[in-house]
Amino acid sequence: MEWLKDSIMMQRGVGAKREPVVHHLTEELQKVFHYTIGPYSQPVLHVKPGDRIIVDTRDAFEGAIKSESDSPTALLKMPFLNPQNGPIMIEGAEKGDVVAVYIESMMPRGEDPHGICCMIPEFGALTGTNYTAMLNDPLPEKVRRVKIDTEYVYWSKRTTLDYKPHIGTLSLSPEIDSINSLTPDNHGGNMDLPDMGPGSITYLPVRSEGARLFIGDAHACQGDGEVCGVAVEYKSVTTIRVDLIKSWAIDWPRLENENCIMGIGSARPLEDATRIAYKELILWMAKDYGFDKWDAYMLLSQCGKVRLGNFVDPKYTVGAAIAKSYLAAEGNAELTTAVAS
Amino acid sequence: MEWLKDSIMMQRGVGAKREPVVHHLTEELQKVFHYTIGPYSQPVLHVKPGDRIIVDTRDAFEGAIKSESDSPTALLKMPFLNPQNGPIMIEGAEKGDVVAVYIESMMPRGEDPHGICCMIPEFGALTGTNYTAMLNDPLPEKVRRVKIDTEYVYWSKRTTLDYKPHIGTLSLSPEIDSINSLTPDNHGGNMDLPDMGPGSITYLPVRSEGARLFIGDAHACQGDGEVCGVAVEYKSVTTIRVDLIKSWAIDWPRLENENCIMGIGSARPLEDATRIAYKELILWMAKDYGFDKWDAYMLLSQCGKVRLGNFVDPKYTVGAAIAKSYLAAEGNAELTTAVAS
Amino acid sequence: MEWLKDSIMMQRGVGAKREPVVHHLTEELQKVFHYTIGPYSQPVLHVKPGDRIIVDTRDAFEGAIKSESDSPTALLKMPFLNPQNGPIMIEGAEKGDVVAVYIESMMPRGEDPHGICCMIPEFGALTGTNYTAMLNDPLPEKVRRVKIDTEYVYWSKRTTLDYKPHIGTLSLSPEIDSINSLTPDNHGGNMDLPDMGPGSITYLPVRSEGARLFIGDAHACQGDGEVCGVAVEYKSVTTIRVDLIKSWAIDWPRLENENCIMGIGSARPLEDATRIAYKELILWMAKDYGFDKWDAYMLLSQCGKVRLGNFVDPKYTVGAAIAKSYLAAEGNAELTTAVAS
Amino acid sequence: MEWLKDSIMMQRGVGAKREPVVHHLTEELQKVFHYTIGPYSQPVLHVKPGDRIIVDTRDAFEGAIKSESDSPTALLKMPFLNPQNGPIMIEGAEKGDVVAVYIESMMPRGEDPHGICCMIPEFGALTGTNYTAMLNDPLPEKVRRVKIDTEYVYWSKRTTLDYKPHIGTLSLSPEIDSINSLTPDNHGGNMDLPDMGPGSITYLPVRSEGARLFIGDAHACQGDGEVCGVAVEYKSVTTIRVDLIKSWAIDWPRLENENCIMGIGSARPLEDATRIAYKELILWMAKDYGFDKWDAYMLLSQCGKVRLGNFVDPKYTVGAAIAKSYLAAEGNAELTTAVAS
Repeated sequence: MEWLKDSIMMQRGVGAKREPVVHHLTEELQKVFHYTIGPYSQPVLHVKPGDRIIVDTRDAFEGAIKSESDSPTALLKMPFLNPQNGPIMIEGAEKGDVVAVYIESMMPRGEDPHGICCMIPEFGALTGTNYTAMLNDPLPEKVRRVKIDTEYVYWSKRTTLDYKPHIGTLSLSPEIDSINSLTPDNHGGNMDLPDMGPGSITYLPVRSEGARLFIGDAHACQGDGEVCGVAVEYKSVTTIRVDLIKSWAIDWPRLENENCIMGIGSARPLEDATRIAYKELILWMAKDYGFDKWDAYMLLSQCGKVRLGNFVDPKYTVGAAIAKSYLAAEGNAELTTAVAS
Repeated sequence: MEWLKDSIMMQRGVGAKREPVVHHLTEELQKVFHYTIGPYSQPVLHVKPGDRIIVDTRDAFEGAIKSESDSPTALLKMPFLNPQNGPIMIEGAEKGDVVAVYIESMMPRGEDPHGICCMIPEFGALTGTNYTAMLNDPLPEKVRRVKIDTEYVYWSKRTTLDYKPHIGTLSLSPEIDSINSLTPDNHGGNMDLPDMGPGSITYLPVRSEGARLFIGDAHACQGDGEVCGVAVEYKSVTTIRVDLIKSWAIDWPRLENENCIMGIGSARPLEDATRIAYKELILWMAKDYGFDKWDAYMLLSQCGKVRLGNFVDPKYTVGAAIAKSYLAAEGNAELTTAVAS
Repeated sequence: MEWLKDSIMMQRGVGAKREPVVHHLTEELQKVFHYTIGPYSQPVLHVKPGDRIIVDTRDAFEGAIKSESDSPTALLKMPFLNPQNGPIMIEGAEKGDVVAVYIESMMPRGEDPHGICCMIPEFGALTGTNYTAMLNDPLPEKVRRVKIDTEYVYWSKRTTLDYKPHIGTLSLSPEIDSINSLTPDNHGGNMDLPDMGPGSITYLPVRSEGARLFIGDAHACQGDGEVCGVAVEYKSVTTIRVDLIKSWAIDWPRLENENCIMGIGSARPLEDATRIAYKELILWMAKDYGFDKWDAYMLLSQCGKVRLGNFVDPKYTVGAAIAKSYLAAEGNAELTTAVAS
Repeated sequence: MEWLKDSIMMQRGVGAKREPVVHHLTEELQKVFHYTIGPYSQPVLHVKPGDRIIVDTRDAFEGAIKSESDSPTALLKMPFLNPQNGPIMIEGAEKGDVVAVYIESMMPRGEDPHGICCMIPEFGALTGTNYTAMLNDPLPEKVRRVKIDTEYVYWSKRTTLDYKPHIGTLSLSPEIDSINSLTPDNHGGNMDLPDMGPGSITYLPVRSEGARLFIGDAHACQGDGEVCGVAVEYKSVTTIRVDLIKSWAIDWPRLENENCIMGIGSARPLEDATRIAYKELILWMAKDYGFDKWDAYMLLSQCGKVRLGNFVDPKYTVGAAIAKSYLAAEGNAELTTAVAS
């Protein structure tokens, strides 16, 4: 992780130079999991910028689905889905700052690790739903329970998938709203973005004292768009490092990894999510990397990369990215780390 | 191109075994370029399945924009944009068949090759347009004229992009409509899909006698979504091999390359384009690769890949793909070529 | 129809003062009905501005559905639906002009008049369709055949509806496209707007020599949005008066009746259709009625009226209207007829 | 209000027979106004089903905009907009019930009553916004301050509008979310539906003990869609009668007035809001009025009425209605009041 020292987090984070204190947010410490992201819940942990937190997450169904003969309809009680750990309070965070969340690792938790995928009636991209209301009969219920380890997801005799974990839901509290954990928006939320795995840094705008970080919804792998509505949901040990960047006013979450920077938008219809993601990326390139705004717009028309997070949640999520190699200043193939300093 | 012999085109194409006859569709032979895709225009070429065609394409502005001080508004006359070569008649093609178009190579045409990008008022994803009507003042006009060669696109002193050519517009005639060349739909059209470059095979549903193939709109490179509305537009020598697959009833274009198969949808809003792409891919996996429909749906939720073609045209285009490695039959890491036979 | 003499058509139409010549476009004269609106079909009639035309329209299914036990799937052959009369050539019409179509009357045609409504699988607003692709099973097929007369539509023992006829599809040819008659756009097309009945004047932008007027798709009544996808479809005698307004450059269809003026937009998603309709209305108020653009915008926020035409066609149609009483000049409760002169 | 005695509220409300106790929710009693609708705020009033409540509402800008030279940008502090009265606790209300809110009257409050309309940068339907992200410069700021009385809204020398008051925001608490008062959804919220004025009954699904009713955002008049984003906002005395209907499980708000019943949906894109509204209406007709579901679907395709509430809020709102005259049972022109009993 050589690149990390040049990341915005390590260049601008107030805790970048600190020796991290390590916290472990166990199930016992968490005690009550949350189904909304907001300013009302009781903090479970207070950390300093630069600290490391080991989080024991529950799966999105909170373990309710145990076998392939289980009925999601019978076992899942809307809106009590997608339990979140937190809120974690970050010392010194104030409205107008940014919290950086670097994901160090994600491991299956417990013995004999398995993941769950399922088809839930009136949920998913290729069926009528509560918002895209239809009169058709719902699709059948289906449950898949698959063995996982730190290399593979054993989908079927026929198909073995790579274990490519990421965190589905990552949020700071909105200023006044308390939003169910199924919905992404400009506070983060249920973005379901495959890029948000180990080796990524997510930047989230702070909107309240202490930031109030929530995290949950580990996926052992997920395709672009999460088309049936459910990834390979599993309970994880997710290790993150958090930091604080003062006075970086951003409107939407952003992401950085070794290879790219990414703007993230969540909205319906899907073109609006994509518009937000690209606009944020253009503004970022103009403000921090010295691009003329119109040049950035035309350049991204040639080399922008789009990731569809989900198009199944109450809002859809899209990331728009540019390779770091294209951010280098004139005549210089390396990333100009100065830009973010 | 070892994989090619196992492709659906080479397995099922009626001309796969033929020694290709080579045709050259020059500007002189083309004479009149077309701004609509439909059943009314005069054929310029008759070929047999398996033939190779070298096509001299014009750039999307038909060469009207020559320098960075030119005004797109003054020079471009809607709807006379995006000139198409064709129609090329494919012997034996009938409604219910599929024409396969394998792109062998794309080269810049003419001396001192350049590409054009520009910002056209009320066109592009981040501005009000004729459909997304706004009262805001339009964005400024801008023209970029950049040198290209077969390795690079020399965007600016600061940024050099890889030459990654693809064909923006590829179509067979609709059954009765004659559709302007700016619009993609289930006949193909202006899909602006970066995957549609050398090494790809596009499968297009035949809707009229002889298929009536149109081709144009070469891009030296293009980002996902073509966000400002324009790629690096250039005039090309594009070499294709066409073949005919009898009695393969598909509703939307499909694509195959060395690594994946892809369903393609074009619609607004963008989620509908994505829905079409994924549904077509699921139906394809179920029909030709032996997947249970619901298993395919859940599997793609874990490993599907989405490419945003454009979200600037009158309809938006999305490709949904699965790696060929995941299509292998049970206990067999190789692609089962039988599936497509 | 006292108001008619003050209408824009009668104030500005070049044929307003002429004694109308009456033409009868019978089935025999029409001979071949059209399924696309475009520049390629053979004219069936040449008229002068101010002429009256009696049009014998077929129903949208061309009479194929005769009883409630008929199967739409078996009998309807896409895209050969919604047959159109025309093209009617209007003398003197050129690109940049407007053709006005005043509907004088619409009567059921033939003995024992009936109308047909039906549910067609994968068509309608509350089901997956070819664009809003779903994996759900389709809705059942249903046919309703109902007696109509010039006062009522006898829907069921329980429900009798008023006969409120309008023309579903009214178009001039696009400049180069030939568009199937199921799709509305800025050329008119399948707008399915209940306001487009007797007593209304529709203004359509001319895009080709002679204008090439198409008309068809009579509805005995229709709710806002045509939610199941089909109105009470019937064969009609529709009497129109056409006129020509020179040099009135409009981008989208507009409508006038005794009480209001209306902008009309067709697009997906539905908000874009609504945006177009309102923007066109604002531009109209600013150009022809002396409103400041921003005042018109804020005023319509208080008194604008929206009509949903359809949200089932390939594009959706919305009308945005303002009462004529609000168009009166300062201190004057009457409509200032000067505005349109 | 002869019809009222046959309304669902009066037929099924547990407090319909009670002599109403009258409560006055003054500014002093309210003390703290709310910017979110949720389970966390302190009740200000406890009432019994059948009670009458006189509510002193503030305008949506809380009086901050006082003159036409004021700057909305300078004076409005997002998200502290659209202040709500409440929560009002309704005795006996439990999840699975419905609260009925009958609006008896709405009067301007205070001396010299005025209303405010304005154009707020990046807000409204015909401009780029925070969700429909654009790079265009924003529209100008504008403020209109207009005199109102109980008959008219004096918009300009040129235009006088009728005083047609309605309540913009009416809600019960969601089960777990606390949603900003700018957003409508299935809890009600900022629906901006012109039908929700004096003489209307709104039915809202109860999702928490006591229902927690919020109300605010009085409009002296408003056009369909509230196109510029702002109605004629004023502070009001709004008098409502609330009642409780036990065990009426509905998913979305519904409305009844003398002439029609209406389903209400809020979502993006706008077609989804319309789908919800129509589906809810169909389910209502099937469950409570004896219609076959498919017959209701086809019938609404002939006589459904659509009202666009807003297409400017974070979600858009649509009402779909059917005239009560069409609900009458077979051979009976009167409404069968039995249906709702």
